[in-house]
Amino acid sequence: MKLFGYNGRILRVNLTNRTTSVETPDEKFYRTYLGGAGFVAYYLTKELKPDVDPLSPDNKLIFAAGPLTGIPLSGSGRHCIGAKSPLGNQIAKSEIGGFWGAEFMHAGYDAIVFDGKADKPVYLWIKDGEVQIKDASHLWGKPTKETQETLRAELGDNRIRVASIGPAGENLVRFACVINDLTEAAGRGGTGAVMGSKNLKAIAVRGTKPPAIAKPDELSQFRQWLTDNSLLWSGMHEFGTGFAMESYVTIGNTPIRNFRDGEFPNIKDITAITLKNTIRVGMEGCYGCIVRCKKIVKVDEPGMQIDPAYGGPEYEGLAALGNTCGVDNLKAICKANERCNAYSLDCISTGVSIAFAMECYEAGLLTSKDTGGIDLRFGNKEAMLQAVELIARREGIGDLLAEGVKASAEKIGKGSEKFAMHVKGLEVPMHDPRCKAGLGLGYIVNPHGADHCANLMDTNYAAPSPNLDELHPFGILEPLPPTEISPKKVQMMHYYRLGRLLGDCLVLCLFTPWRISQFPEMVKVVTGWDTGMVEMFKCTERMLALAQIFDIKQGLNPGADDLPDRFFTGRVGGPAAAKKVDREKLNKARDYYFRLMGWDAKGVPTPETLEALDIAWATTK
Amino acid sequence: MKLFGYNGRILRVNLTNRTTSVETPDEKFYRTYLGGAGFVAYYLTKELKPDVDPLSPDNKLIFAAGPLTGIPLSGSGRHCIGAKSPLGNQIAKSEIGGFWGAEFMHAGYDAIVFDGKADKPVYLWIKDGEVQIKDASHLWGKPTKETQETLRAELGDNRIRVASIGPAGENLVRFACVINDLTEAAGRGGTGAVMGSKNLKAIAVRGTKPPAIAKPDELSQFRQWLTDNSLLWSGMHEFGTGFAMESYVTIGNTPIRNFRDGEFPNIKDITAITLKNTIRVGMEGCYGCIVRCKKIVKVDEPGMQIDPAYGGPEYEGLAALGNTCGVDNLKAICKANERCNAYSLDCISTGVSIAFAMECYEAGLLTSKDTGGIDLRFGNKEAMLQAVELIARREGIGDLLAEGVKASAEKIGKGSEKFAMHVKGLEVPMHDPRCKAGLGLGYIVNPHGADHCANLMDTNYAAPSPNLDELHPFGILEPLPPTEISPKKVQMMHYYRLGRLLGDCLVLCLFTPWRISQFPEMVKVVTGWDTGMVEMFKCTERMLALAQIFDIKQGLNPGADDLPDRFFTGRVGGPAAAKKVDREKLNKARDYYFRLMGWDAKGVPTPETLEALDIAWATTK
Repeated sequence: MKLFGYNGRILRVNLTNRTTSVETPDEKFYRTYLGGAGFVAYYLTKELKPDVDPLSPDNKLIFAAGPLTGIPLSGSGRHCIGAKSPLGNQIAKSEIGGFWGAEFMHAGYDAIVFDGKADKPVYLWIKDGEVQIKDASHLWGKPTKETQETLRAELGDNRIRVASIGPAGENLVRFACVINDLTEAAGRGGTGAVMGSKNLKAIAVRGTKPPAIAKPDELSQFRQWLTDNSLLWSGMHEFGTGFAMESYVTIGNTPIRNFRDGEFPNIKDITAITLKNTIRVGMEGCYGCIVRCKKIVKVDEPGMQIDPAYGGPEYEGLAALGNTCGVDNLKAICKANERCNAYSLDCISTGVSIAFAMECYEAGLLTSKDTGGIDLRFGNKEAMLQAVELIARREGIGDLLAEGVKASAEKIGKGSEKFAMHVKGLEVPMHDPRCKAGLGLGYIVNPHGADHCANLMDTNYAAPSPNLDELHPFGILEPLPPTEISPKKVQMMHYYRLGRLLGDCLVLCLFTPWRISQFPEMVKVVTGWDTGMVEMFKCTERMLALAQIFDIKQGLNPGADDLPDRFFTGRVGGPAAAKKVDREKLNKARDYYFRLMGWDAKGVPTPETLEALDIAWATTK
Repeated sequence: MKLFGYNGRILRVNLTNRTTSVETPDEKFYRTYLGGAGFVAYYLTKELKPDVDPLSPDNKLIFAAGPLTGIPLSGSGRHCIGAKSPLGNQIAKSEIGGFWGAEFMHAGYDAIVFDGKADKPVYLWIKDGEVQIKDASHLWGKPTKETQETLRAELGDNRIRVASIGPAGENLVRFACVINDLTEAAGRGGTGAVMGSKNLKAIAVRGTKPPAIAKPDELSQFRQWLTDNSLLWSGMHEFGTGFAMESYVTIGNTPIRNFRDGEFPNIKDITAITLKNTIRVGMEGCYGCIVRCKKIVKVDEPGMQIDPAYGGPEYEGLAALGNTCGVDNLKAICKANERCNAYSLDCISTGVSIAFAMECYEAGLLTSKDTGGIDLRFGNKEAMLQAVELIARREGIGDLLAEGVKASAEKIGKGSEKFAMHVKGLEVPMHDPRCKAGLGLGYIVNPHGADHCANLMDTNYAAPSPNLDELHPFGILEPLPPTEISPKKVQMMHYYRLGRLLGDCLVLCLFTPWRISQFPEMVKVVTGWDTGMVEMFKCTERMLALAQIFDIKQGLNPGADDLPDRFFTGRVGGPAAAKKVDREKLNKARDYYFRLMGWDAKGVPTPETLEALDIAWATTK
């Protein structure tokens, strides 16, 4: 039976032996696990032994596209990268845009599973199905831009797409990420450190043969819909993320000084609106996308040059390196963001780790001796920029912070844990559960840790809005207050999570305003399957059950995860000072969410659930 | 806001006061409860006090159409009738075809809720919105045909559609049904007895103004689909139900001598195939339906005349009055079926009650003195026909049997309970859980009792087949053996129940082979709502939760219902002698089903489930 929407080929790379092989799963495999986050959950849960050290050769690193990757449709330029996370031993997965995913899909594979560790630095070169493991000694130590330029030059094709790590990945910074196209990051969870631990510097791809689409003509209906609904993405098109930061201070959504404070008068100086009016020189887009939400920033000042090749900051970068660190200087923030892309650092974890250090420093838990003389107080932009460099190089205080806030706090002790903003070791992103109760629930039940992308619904659906319309097909017709944490909110959050995480399996962009209810239709058109929302949601439930089983198998107790204490109290000052998470309601909401998922009270998927999801093979042993 | 697909008017009739009034619910009400079985569950659970005697004026009787009733599409000629059941005090609902529902919908109302009891026999006359309560003394005692003829004559319009009871309903036979168009029965649960207890003989309707449809042109896609897929209904078109009875003996699906035996050599003499080749004189259809699966039977023999106005037997009638009673004479079966329609008797409960009496008689628990000299042994066709008459008139042994098998066994005692084939007091229909394990689970978890329509999936989806295709959009891609009762079977049964019971809310025919996945599209086209499968399934879950709450409120313990003991053992002889239900697996399956529904281990919907379904108002007090 001809397979549509997939290549039907999974690439296996054993770096220890420097061998490659190809698996050709049947259609049922694809329909069961879909792709992206689904493949990541499948391979890691199926194949990783218990108690694997994430930075040992026993960890696996997975690059996974999905049926929508690289199709001629906005939002399709994405894939997913996964591994056991070196931050908290949980399952890590992170989606990434740009052009690499589409190029990879067109090169003849649906995913790569890396095992083992090369004895010396290597890179992988894939050209229309042909695979080579090549020496990368000359690339080691190079930032991502030099890596890409060198590879394009030596392979003789400027259309090659490169995913690589920079020095941070090589140096095993636990929140190092993978960068492709210089501007794109698979930020969360430390997959770049895993890549570094395998001595894998880069994957260069060139592909010219997209998988066949079952009903290619029917894609035009979606393109037309997006054109007809430009109001849903015009803001993103004009500003990119980060245009609402002023209102975020008002409602209490954006972290200020490590989530401690509530006031940040200069927020207007660092928003995407100000960015547009000052140092932004253009906007670009990912593969085939009409939205074009990617900022390009250029600064030519002596001592503060920003290379436009690295793009510009998303909201997460602006807030993590800005207000979270108390920094209100836009150029410094953009420079730090540029360095994150050059070194392959997750800008969220980087910012939160520096903010953690700043709070420790101000509280006297870290001293000037610890920081090597850096005056690491909130708002010191030079200190923030220095810290980024030290983290990437694992030098001085950077060597400590490169462990992530969870491990750093354990090393520092002295009560510093209360400043460590993480769930499952993953630093909390730039959305605050104190003003978005469903988000907080999402953080603690998520097998991957504190991930905002799957849980961003509280404000979206808080008032009658085009966003709420998205949930109408799910019978959610009325808005719910963002701070409400009721069974109805849990239900809303359940559907939203199933939908958005389905997007992570397919793989489809969150910023192209596709409606969740369109996903099954897209899958039908691309794969030819007679599917529907119920099956698609079941695929997400399967992915999540596998991820949860993974965490348990690796020795975690994911059903008992909690938010940082800070979220259960208010913050200092500001218009949202009084907002806080109600612990009792949160716990009840978690209980209900587990029941909706078919998990027991401890968050363990029941045997019946696993059997009904066709993954009875998944065991915690 | 203009409402599409509904009239927006609910008719209230207080028979005690002889007053009528009209309620005009808002769109949210309609989108929440949909119609049909949904309206029945809403009004009964919301309004009926605890511990109401089903045959007292405190019971309510509900006639409810749905958004698909009376639209120009095959399968839309149906509505639902509900009340508290006089058989087991559980919620009763039963769907019925023909033309009455469409005519009613076109007359300007979506449902009627009857309260109280008229002091003398009355009928209701609705003509394009105008309502009159009229004297029916002259109709009392008349069979359904004479009732219809009299009403059409006195109201002066042959296009009037009549729903009425015959003598069985008047005599409060607990399994009396409501008949419309003479050939159609809302068979299950005893709504005809409730109608009789209210002195309500009939409802005559005439309507010429269908509700507006949001996108009428888009209905053509469904008509085209049905034309293109004629193979899915050609068997039903040619034979109607009952063409597979020979194979049913082989697999053990059709009851033989009160579910006791396994062999019935003459089965071929009483199937729909034989019927077609002998006494069938034609086929007719319901409102707007292309399938036309309704048999017309005519016999002119002296002493065995069968009036074609009453149609002919469905499979349920053939089997209940035939092999269940050991009767292999086709004319006698058709005659008994004709009498059921004339007297307003549910042919299933009638047959099973007579079979119960026959087994009691053969076992010596009933004697010739009890039967008034009738030799009530299995296979005695004259005895079967006599029993039908006695039940309808509540004379002799008929007065006992008119109570249903549950109450009859309680009165007879002496171990006769083991011959009483019922769940929740509702006699078991003509599908045997010993060969269809999911069906058995459906019988015991169904708030309405042993209803086959919502649970007929085991054999449908047992092998790769066009039927299995229906479940592909739900991710069920592989057949499951009919006797399997695993989590996967429970999941299959859950989806099938949600889908088919959604059809009972909409209201749509089970025998027109619409796919469950088409239902949300139909609702979109008719109502204009931006809905989808998830919301529609939630509507079914809401209906079922309300029905379950109803049962609990009325003093039942529906979570503890069990199959008759006989199903846990084999049967006597025949090819399926060894098949039986595994009690332990059934109980585990029930536990899992309750969890899928968001009900606790005792089958009580949890507060979180009720709140998420927007029915926190539903309490068991």
